[in-house]
Amino acid sequence: MSILVVGSVAYDTVETPFGTAERVLGGSASFFSVAASFFVPVRLVAVVGEDFGEEQLAAFKDRPIDLEGLERTKGKTFHWGGKYSLDLNSRETLFTDLNVFEFFKPKIPAAYRTSEAVFLGNIDPVLQRQVLEQVEKPQLVACDTMNFWIDGQPDELRETLRQVQILLINDAEARELSGEWNLVKAARAVRKMGPRTLVVKKGEHGVLMFTDEGCFAAPAYPLETVFDPTGAGDTFAGGFLGYLASAGEQGDAALRRAIVVGSTLASFCCEAFSLDRLLTLTRREIDERYREFQDLTRFESL
Amino acid sequence: MSILVVGSVAYDTVETPFGTAERVLGGSASFFSVAASFFVPVRLVAVVGEDFGEEQLAAFKDRPIDLEGLERTKGKTFHWGGKYSLDLNSRETLFTDLNVFEFFKPKIPAAYRTSEAVFLGNIDPVLQRQVLEQVEKPQLVACDTMNFWIDGQPDELRETLRQVQILLINDAEARELSGEWNLVKAARAVRKMGPRTLVVKKGEHGVLMFTDEGCFAAPAYPLETVFDPTGAGDTFAGGFLGYLASAGEQGDAALRRAIVVGSTLASFCCEAFSLDRLLTLTRREIDERYREFQDLTRFESL
Repeated sequence: MSILVVGSVAYDTVETPFGTAERVLGGSASFFSVAASFFVPVRLVAVVGEDFGEEQLAAFKDRPIDLEGLERTKGKTFHWGGKYSLDLNSRETLFTDLNVFEFFKPKIPAAYRTSEAVFLGNIDPVLQRQVLEQVEKPQLVACDTMNFWIDGQPDELRETLRQVQILLINDAEARELSGEWNLVKAARAVRKMGPRTLVVKKGEHGVLMFTDEGCFAAPAYPLETVFDPTGAGDTFAGGFLGYLASAGEQGDAALRRAIVVGSTLASFCCEAFSLDRLLTLTRREIDERYREFQDLTRFESL
Repeated sequence: MSILVVGSVAYDTVETPFGTAERVLGGSASFFSVAASFFVPVRLVAVVGEDFGEEQLAAFKDRPIDLEGLERTKGKTFHWGGKYSLDLNSRETLFTDLNVFEFFKPKIPAAYRTSEAVFLGNIDPVLQRQVLEQVEKPQLVACDTMNFWIDGQPDELRETLRQVQILLINDAEARELSGEWNLVKAARAVRKMGPRTLVVKKGEHGVLMFTDEGCFAAPAYPLETVFDPTGAGDTFAGGFLGYLASAGEQGDAALRRAIVVGSTLASFCCEAFSLDRLLTLTRREIDERYREFQDLTRFESL
């Protein structure tokens, strides 16, 4: 099952207590694609400017990532700048130069229309729906969003959510979307909007997943050094959906394994700037850390 | 193995979005004792004033809780008042009337001196050590503390920690005690101070435990209604140490089960004011929720 992903491919300039990375590869679709590509072929739909270099494209090469849908247009590539606090627990956005991303209208290449899985990255919910309309018969549709759309386009977002099976958002977004502080109540409200599966990302506190079968809680991997958390949520989504699309079934057990795979990939993402760690990562390392998650969480019956 | 616990027995006046409870039974040793008494006999060392009523004592009756060490002295019982935010995620202390607790000098009855397990509740580290000196040969010593002692009595606290096997504190306290924001680094630093086992309580985000064998992560039970979280941390400690003292061994597997038992008891504590839910709780309900924790966290190998 191949995944079509639509989202941003960007330059990031990131300051952490460990140093600064200038104009390195970023963007939700970049992190998602590389993470998912460990498991299934990925078809990327995004836009970059004339300044986007071969060096950045190299991240996608030698991987099953189809770049036919990566549009290159006149202007500059989306550039985000942020600075993390000393404890890496909060960050300040220094600038958001949307550039060519401001007028992004996803164009789905003909060859992508048969994609069986779709990941709608965090873009205008109207555009998310237009993408979906161009895909013939996706079996698996997952979606991200953010406060900007929850506040600014609530009706459009609701319409999109009706067509989505899996929604991946963070705890603040789940609360805002539902109007409920308590996450169990928030999950019930959000799941009534369409997505049968809600994945609530809580950063260093792990993930809660709500499905028809109940609730699943996974911790984050206790990293001794969080070098740069930029992209961890998108990497989580890529690992999650990539594994799920490769699993051959999407029942509760597969969803749970997918959560742990996503958490595994996200933990590696935090170990270096940009996609640097993901690009050296091996399947054996993924399997090893997955087993560490088993050690981290196992306990016996009373 | 019976547990000697020293700490506070108090009146609490608590405001939550669901209502107000005035002068109800509270105090760290109260929650701890009732939680631990599901598993082992408890010997309580605390002080109350002349105003402490039979109604409150009733909580300890019909349970294996020895009250010989509950001193009654001239004056009023410790009274704490607090108000929770609408989301129950933060609270404001309205008043702290220490009353007889201000001059509390724990006196250990002769019959308690053979106690095999000791829980040093959150009191002056000098007093914690004096308690320990009065117990003959405890096999299991666990301890709580708080920012007030970490800041105000750092040297005395260090001296106490050298004699402790298990320290149970929250994430903010672990960070403050170690001077490290990252919890893996914080745990390494704290464990060098004495306690081979560090339990870091993260409230709604669950628990991390660090032992010689590595790290264990347990989620909090996803409650739909958190009615009143007062005492949940002390209840956790009581369930944890009570189960551990009853387990016959204190290896990593038993410690992990104890963490989940503690989390189970703490979840019940939050369902009502004061000790109300703990007082109606049955062993069967504990076993059922423990199994729910297993469902909440299980996932298969890749």
